[in-house]
Amino acid sequence: MGIESEKWILMVTARTPTNIAVIKYWGKRDETLILPINDSISLTLDPTHLSTTTTVSVSPTFHQDRMWLNGKEISLQGGRFQSCLREIRARAQDVQDKKKGIDIKKEDWQKLHLHIASYNNFPTAAGLASSAAGLACLVFSLAKLMNLKEDNSQLSAIARQGSGSACRSLYGGFVKWVMGKEDNGSDSLAVQLADEKHWDELVIIIAVVSARQKETSSTSGMRDTVETSALIQHRAKEVVPKRIVQMEDAIQNRDFPSFARLACTDSNQFHAVCLDTYPPIFYMNDTSHRIISCVEKWNRAEGAPQVAYTFDAGPNAVMIARNRKTAALLLQRLLYNFPPESDTDLGRVNNFI
Amino acid sequence: MGIESEKWILMVTARTPTNIAVIKYWGKRDETLILPINDSISLTLDPTHLSTTTTVSVSPTFHQDRMWLNGKEISLQGGRFQSCLREIRARAQDVQDKKKGIDIKKEDWQKLHLHIASYNNFPTAAGLASSAAGLACLVFSLAKLMNLKEDNSQLSAIARQGSGSACRSLYGGFVKWVMGKEDNGSDSLAVQLADEKHWDELVIIIAVVSARQKETSSTSGMRDTVETSALIQHRAKEVVPKRIVQMEDAIQNRDFPSFARLACTDSNQFHAVCLDTYPPIFYMNDTSHRIISCVEKWNRAEGAPQVAYTFDAGPNAVMIARNRKTAALLLQRLLYNFPPESDTDLGRVNNFI
Repeated sequence: MGIESEKWILMVTARTPTNIAVIKYWGKRDETLILPINDSISLTLDPTHLSTTTTVSVSPTFHQDRMWLNGKEISLQGGRFQSCLREIRARAQDVQDKKKGIDIKKEDWQKLHLHIASYNNFPTAAGLASSAAGLACLVFSLAKLMNLKEDNSQLSAIARQGSGSACRSLYGGFVKWVMGKEDNGSDSLAVQLADEKHWDELVIIIAVVSARQKETSSTSGMRDTVETSALIQHRAKEVVPKRIVQMEDAIQNRDFPSFARLACTDSNQFHAVCLDTYPPIFYMNDTSHRIISCVEKWNRAEGAPQVAYTFDAGPNAVMIARNRKTAALLLQRLLYNFPPESDTDLGRVNNFI
Repeated sequence: MGIESEKWILMVTARTPTNIAVIKYWGKRDETLILPINDSISLTLDPTHLSTTTTVSVSPTFHQDRMWLNGKEISLQGGRFQSCLREIRARAQDVQDKKKGIDIKKEDWQKLHLHIASYNNFPTAAGLASSAAGLACLVFSLAKLMNLKEDNSQLSAIARQGSGSACRSLYGGFVKWVMGKEDNGSDSLAVQLADEKHWDELVIIIAVVSARQKETSSTSGMRDTVETSALIQHRAKEVVPKRIVQMEDAIQNRDFPSFARLACTDSNQFHAVCLDTYPPIFYMNDTSHRIISCVEKWNRAEGAPQVAYTFDAGPNAVMIARNRKTAALLLQRLLYNFPPESDTDLGRVNNFI
């Protein structure tokens, strides 16, 4: 093919926001293909805030696939990266750039090596879905680089094999990850329920309680839950399917009280099944509990939900305010209850995003 | 009857230990009769440690029923006290003491008034089952005073109407509260599974994380759970019945690994359904979590459970060591991890009982 001798480099940069599940994904029915035991629904954040930026590049001068995360080289040998790379290369198309003298045939992609540089503008592995943004961005940028013809839904099924929740970051707005029925995972992919304009009054505030990496990874945590919790199957089979229907309705109708109630109870139930795991998994801490109490107290005082909260696999609170005015009031309350000047390092909130 | 003019006083003093559930009671099917949604199993503590001491007295000079708890007068008007007093008076018998010139006919008890003084030798309403010991002791001492013919199991059904878990404190050793089927609660009572000598190697250590009164009372907490948790009925109907059988076997066979696994997972599941309640109920705090992690780590390192933990409606840890030697090692570990001299007042354990 003669491209080895040339010195060109081809690059694509993409940015992908993280997404926050309001009906949670927790538990797989297939560990390798990453097939979940229930549907989930998420909100994709505005990419100007929590997001991953990834540059993928290909050049005949590269001699192996390499990746850097936040400036530090990491291994691409993991099964999940390999799955994504394999699935994308299998769908790669011809790429030509006559100006640069680039002429890649689809079969060349099997031999060409990639350099991948990825940055998160927020704490990594702290329960803020960094892997969702990261893998979605990786798959999306590689798909652009290799000129894939697949649409975002089809790409989501590839991203899913890198990190389950990554599939939901391929769309903006409100996204459902349909668990699917097929053993090969072909129907386990993301669909957009409504775009980002549908309900754009909502404001998301994230309180970074701890930016430390979590002690129990989501992968091992959910495996332990599926193996040991006596409640997880009841949740997946009986509770979540009803909540998915209700949440779709709440989003469709911009019904904030229902949305908030479902988001809060589903977050709590996810942490409940973590606690029902053996040994138990604790992602929330006393500060998380205080934030919940603060929000619940306010919602009760107002007689109607003003703010919903949801916590992923970490102590950090994601709060969804019904509109900008409420978000401003929420920030006031949080700053009052968790003053940033506080000189105690126990129980304080480090940052608001 | 002529007893009004006499100046005699008749007293009975009794001491009743608290009990610690290892398969938890959480949720009622009848709020007034206090009928639970599942069976539960507990260990009754040694009465020389956590216990209530109650003196009940009757005299024609008393003009109303009165009660003092820890030296402070409290109201007896609550429905639960009234239920117990009514049930006991209905079963009262003749009492004679010729030396003192006392001759009470059973019907006199309806008119005679009582003075009740009760002391807990441990924190009240801090999730250490103070009401269990208290109501069991009240019923037991009144039954003695009024010469009731009922056995402890029948008395347990009366104590149950004062505080559900009180029924289990009428026996020593290992006790099961059978939920019963009858609408009138007549078959919802305590039975002794094994006496205190059956498995007397076990040593209980209680770490008082906080002696403050809990924010959510058990009564309102379990009502909220039954009304709002999507998991509680599955727990009560599907999970607990199997665990009851397994726990009875573990106790019968003095099988510590099974006993520990069941006790820990059931405690965790009880706290999981609290978290699944809306708004969520948090009884454990970061210190409780650290104690669990400490015990789990040790058990894992030893390859077999050395210590079981269980938490009631509060952050205080009840740990059950397999024998005295293990208990001594546990105390060492706890004192190392939670040094009593520590000058931080966040996250420390106040006391070991």
